[in-house]
Amino acid sequence: MIAKTPEPPYYAVIFTNTINENLEGYADTATRMVELAEEQEGFLGFESARDGIGISVSYWKDLESIRLWKANSEHLFAQEKGKSEWYKSYTTRIAKVEREYSFDSGV
Amino acid sequence: MIAKTPEPPYYAVIFTNTINENLEGYADTATRMVELAEEQEGFLGFESARDGIGISVSYWKDLESIRLWKANSEHLFAQEKGKSEWYKSYTTRIAKVEREYSFDSGV
Repeated sequence: MIAKTPEPPYYAVIFTNTINENLEGYADTATRMVELAEEQEGFLGFESARDGIGISVSYWKDLESIRLWKANSEHLFAQEKGKSEWYKSYTTRIAKVEREYSFDSGV
Repeated sequence: MIAKTPEPPYYAVIFTNTINENLEGYADTATRMVELAEEQEGFLGFESARDGIGISVSYWKDLESIRLWKANSEHLFAQEKGKSEWYKSYTTRIAKVEREYSFDSGV
């Protein structure tokens, strides 16, 4: 689903990653992290796709919301598991969305 | 591949989309657009994944590079084909990357 976000400005966290072959526990944790993110103050939306690389983009009201989400204890635990077990590599980019435009064919 | 981008600040164009079932010509055009983008002044990198939705992120030096890329005549033609034939819906977000950090397990 394409996230429905408010008028800019707001923030995006672009998380691009490659994963290992042994992914025990990964899918459950990924699902849980989306649920947990949705409960956070300032969460605006989430988009994710994987083929070869994974790209997940979460949208947030401001930098403070992102800081609090990053420091969430359950999320910190998942981040550590991600580094030690699941992710081969990743890059996280924090970006301020300045403009947004959409198209819908109505089909 | 995860894009190798320079120290922020730079810009990201986050293009999230859903596509129609009839995609005649789409794959060739998508490949060509990446090749063409790579030749543009200010292009820094590209990441793309699709399952269910497609997420493509291109990275650019500044807003002027993005403006010129959007106005490129071959790209304009592809954008029109995209709207009339291939895309069910899309959202484009233009965002200023303020921070970036990476992890590589070395595996």
